[in-house]
Amino acid sequence: MAVMRLGYLHARVTNLAEAKRHYVNTLGMQVVLEQDNRLYLKCWDEWDHHSLMLEEGGVGLIKLGYKVAKAEDLAYFEQKIEAFGVRTTRMSAGENLAVGEGIRFTMPSGHLMELYHEMEFTNTAVGLVNPPLFPRHLVGVGVPRLDHCLLKTDDIPLAERFCIEALDFKPAERLVSELGDTGELMGTWLFCQHKTHDIAFVAGEQGRIHHWAYKLENWDAIRHAGAILSMDDTSVGFGPDIHGLSRGDTIYFFDPAGNRNEVFAGGYETYQDFPTVTWTADEIPRAVSYIGREIAENHFTVDT
Amino acid sequence: MAVMRLGYLHARVTNLAEAKRHYVNTLGMQVVLEQDNRLYLKCWDEWDHHSLMLEEGGVGLIKLGYKVAKAEDLAYFEQKIEAFGVRTTRMSAGENLAVGEGIRFTMPSGHLMELYHEMEFTNTAVGLVNPPLFPRHLVGVGVPRLDHCLLKTDDIPLAERFCIEALDFKPAERLVSELGDTGELMGTWLFCQHKTHDIAFVAGEQGRIHHWAYKLENWDAIRHAGAILSMDDTSVGFGPDIHGLSRGDTIYFFDPAGNRNEVFAGGYETYQDFPTVTWTADEIPRAVSYIGREIAENHFTVDT
Amino acid sequence: MAVMRLGYLHARVTNLAEAKRHYVNTLGMQVVLEQDNRLYLKCWDEWDHHSLMLEEGGVGLIKLGYKVAKAEDLAYFEQKIEAFGVRTTRMSAGENLAVGEGIRFTMPSGHLMELYHEMEFTNTAVGLVNPPLFPRHLVGVGVPRLDHCLLKTDDIPLAERFCIEALDFKPAERLVSELGDTGELMGTWLFCQHKTHDIAFVAGEQGRIHHWAYKLENWDAIRHAGAILSMDDTSVGFGPDIHGLSRGDTIYFFDPAGNRNEVFAGGYETYQDFPTVTWTADEIPRAVSYIGREIAENHFTVDT
Amino acid sequence: MAVMRLGYLHARVTNLAEAKRHYVNTLGMQVVLEQDNRLYLKCWDEWDHHSLMLEEGGVGLIKLGYKVAKAEDLAYFEQKIEAFGVRTTRMSAGENLAVGEGIRFTMPSGHLMELYHEMEFTNTAVGLVNPPLFPRHLVGVGVPRLDHCLLKTDDIPLAERFCIEALDFKPAERLVSELGDTGELMGTWLFCQHKTHDIAFVAGEQGRIHHWAYKLENWDAIRHAGAILSMDDTSVGFGPDIHGLSRGDTIYFFDPAGNRNEVFAGGYETYQDFPTVTWTADEIPRAVSYIGREIAENHFTVDT
Repeated sequence: MAVMRLGYLHARVTNLAEAKRHYVNTLGMQVVLEQDNRLYLKCWDEWDHHSLMLEEGGVGLIKLGYKVAKAEDLAYFEQKIEAFGVRTTRMSAGENLAVGEGIRFTMPSGHLMELYHEMEFTNTAVGLVNPPLFPRHLVGVGVPRLDHCLLKTDDIPLAERFCIEALDFKPAERLVSELGDTGELMGTWLFCQHKTHDIAFVAGEQGRIHHWAYKLENWDAIRHAGAILSMDDTSVGFGPDIHGLSRGDTIYFFDPAGNRNEVFAGGYETYQDFPTVTWTADEIPRAVSYIGREIAENHFTVDT
Repeated sequence: MAVMRLGYLHARVTNLAEAKRHYVNTLGMQVVLEQDNRLYLKCWDEWDHHSLMLEEGGVGLIKLGYKVAKAEDLAYFEQKIEAFGVRTTRMSAGENLAVGEGIRFTMPSGHLMELYHEMEFTNTAVGLVNPPLFPRHLVGVGVPRLDHCLLKTDDIPLAERFCIEALDFKPAERLVSELGDTGELMGTWLFCQHKTHDIAFVAGEQGRIHHWAYKLENWDAIRHAGAILSMDDTSVGFGPDIHGLSRGDTIYFFDPAGNRNEVFAGGYETYQDFPTVTWTADEIPRAVSYIGREIAENHFTVDT
Repeated sequence: MAVMRLGYLHARVTNLAEAKRHYVNTLGMQVVLEQDNRLYLKCWDEWDHHSLMLEEGGVGLIKLGYKVAKAEDLAYFEQKIEAFGVRTTRMSAGENLAVGEGIRFTMPSGHLMELYHEMEFTNTAVGLVNPPLFPRHLVGVGVPRLDHCLLKTDDIPLAERFCIEALDFKPAERLVSELGDTGELMGTWLFCQHKTHDIAFVAGEQGRIHHWAYKLENWDAIRHAGAILSMDDTSVGFGPDIHGLSRGDTIYFFDPAGNRNEVFAGGYETYQDFPTVTWTADEIPRAVSYIGREIAENHFTVDT
Repeated sequence: MAVMRLGYLHARVTNLAEAKRHYVNTLGMQVVLEQDNRLYLKCWDEWDHHSLMLEEGGVGLIKLGYKVAKAEDLAYFEQKIEAFGVRTTRMSAGENLAVGEGIRFTMPSGHLMELYHEMEFTNTAVGLVNPPLFPRHLVGVGVPRLDHCLLKTDDIPLAERFCIEALDFKPAERLVSELGDTGELMGTWLFCQHKTHDIAFVAGEQGRIHHWAYKLENWDAIRHAGAILSMDDTSVGFGPDIHGLSRGDTIYFFDPAGNRNEVFAGGYETYQDFPTVTWTADEIPRAVSYIGREIAENHFTVDT
């Protein structure tokens, strides 16, 4: 019984052609399907049908799809989510293109989430028999895989408690105003299986998203990504740098609609017995930007 | 209900002082305890009491300890292992230093394995509050974490079936003599949670071990490790190179007693829905040594 | 007839003990000699006696020593410098500790420079017979070599012309307000042999220095350096990032006295026929900080 | 007065179409001109007209072109070469496509060499105004620049003495059978300006070439190159590894005709006062293959 990963993310973009240029030409995602003002995309190392759906009109998050390990996990989580006091509805196979049945609910943080177990298998770009290390002809950054998202909420403790109690997530790292009982929770980074984090929350308006992230191979891939982003005139938020919180190498940047993306590498592996790490507010500079310790203002103010 | 990881490994070495020089000065493991011809060691990013126990006298594997996620998992796996037809015995807390109660059994491959849920928590070298990215004063290679092991057996299909049916592992990659029904299974690499592999089997004498591996950060860390190994006159098996099978960066080398170690980096993340990759015998050169495609003879002939 | 490299740099620091902590413990330079409020230091891959002399009292540059290829080059450059209209004086062997005779002059930019041909040879830390790749026990960042400096002047065209006509340097890159005849020279980066640059000038007060730089091996070494700098609470100016101008990987930071240092890696090789690259003012963001394209204000305002 | 670099190399290949696939598709060189069974190629960061000329028919080296710094250097070296006892002839502008006048001679090692000062300038692939870090669409390995060559001769001391006395090269590293007067010179690696080496000699048949090398950015670029070489079924000699002799990261491989190439990264910078490093025969394993210390037999036996 477990949530496995962020499987798909639906977002709005102001202009689909511009978005396509960004996600396909610059980031190197592959177009799975384009129809009715919707663009379905996947990364080269993902085996499911798609991981990103972009819809023209506006900006920001539409919904998140997290994939569970077993068919029976749907009923298991449905019960736990309802027990937490959150209404769920059943979704039918096909309501989302290529996705099986599942459950749908709005998290206490105001974000629409779907849990599902099946998505059409369309294989990675390298295949399953004697695969090459990576596709011989990668495009742009060549992102291998969708990784995690950081969401905003006006009640971080509630959002965290929901993920722990209803979804069996566990906090890998927590940011508090100070140590001890009077410390206020300012952010939480949670994992469901083994990632450094699969979902995270910081303070802000309900339902907003700070960024979604792609996992790259290492610090050199971050450098290469940064060079491509600059060549393609992509707006960079900040980076490259290392997060003290997660040990992840990072660059933040914006798609043409203003949605923030991240390329992320490194970070440690988590397990069910991972001992939660605590960061205190006075160490936010190192937590966010370990080397530079200067964080661009936009990082705290811009979301979609 | 899940096995989480290879938590500890007990091995024999011919000379404890020489072993200490290798594992501490060269690899950078920390001495936890030395007593009665036994040396307990851990890596800097491990939070449990130890991950390696070396005992003077001989060479080769004594036993493997895999940590399970929940206390009740012990009974769950005990039942499954017995149902598979393998005898288990209960082990008491304290039978292994700092380890809680568990179950013990000999796998069909002839290797002694223990499952346990508790080990004394002694924290990582960077701690849990505002931790630095890595310890300020690393020694030698500075290995962060024990990763996996490769075992030998005269019945690979049985060893694989045991790991799948009794331990809920899943094969990430399989090596076959040829595709199709007549193909013989020549090797199997299985994961329990998310690693590229947690345990693996190739053909050989029952109960023998090919190597155990430490996880490094990336390809540059592999280069640094190789330089240190050479400066310290460590015998290298082969590498650096990349495994096509796992996409892992690698160097194999031997401790002074002749046990083979590996430093491993990269590799992909697995999930319960990971689609098993198949390698065929004609592609063994790329599977093992993607770039050089020449594998030192010792790699196939030496084990302990 | 050629200047070879920036061989030594003398600077002032407010507190020698604090400076020692920075240059020795954090950067990993070796103490050659400490006497009379002066500290002589060298990097591990330098074979001459020292490359940095720090004197207690104040902050900022005292003088620069550039080493010439042959003894007769001193007379050659003496003549050229005088012909340019700059007064030179002869300095005797021993006026500078371990340095042979040479010539001394104040560049039109207001910086004191010495040319010399001999310095006591004290060997690198790895030696000349079957040397290891790097010293087995490096400290902190472990800087291998002093690389270049960036100076300030109120007359960049004159400073450049002096380096070209009197010292036989050649501009690798130039920053202009705009292309064409009306473009004003805003910065110049010159090399004497093969480096990306050996000396450079930007606009500012005569005689001031923006930074001096150490050459690291690559982008991963920059990451490691940044982590160490942060752990040791070193004040970082900005970075890590890549300079478009020079293709060099970079982090800027300050010693405890406020002198700015840089760790620099990558960059291209120059030759006498290197075709000068031009950057225009509208591309300053990419020229300085190719990925982030946001440059901390201090980078333009702080010098010593 | 100085030789600057290996500017062009002419070689024979058995099949021009296959060679084109290797040098263009796999290595990423650009076709400058193809005519009369000759293929002219250049690397993306080279500004001269071409650096490699391949001629169909056979295998092995035709000749080497080294570029000198100034027009008057041709007469200077002509005099020195003649004084050494080697006959030179004048070559006219245009004898070699796009190359100016020069001098031609056979080195005592039996290799045909040309010195020239002018070659048609055709600019790098990134240009001279606000250049990107690298071309936005690199092909395959994407080699930036030709670097050096290793030649064979039956009289290494003579070959070395010629390079030193007639060409003003300097040995960076020397391999001797043993230290002291009875030590025999087994190899010599010489530089003319600043490279780790520009030309080198080991024992073998007069006039043969061991390999020519391309300079890559760093160890990660070597990994990427190795992956591409393997995907394209290029025959690899050995590597990846690090040379102790030069500190260079390396992979050796063969073009379809059997000419050996190298991708090389790292290495130190030399200067006129570089103190020559000596390697002894017992340390050949580390000198050639610092980590693996096993060198494929072909490395010593195959040349063209």
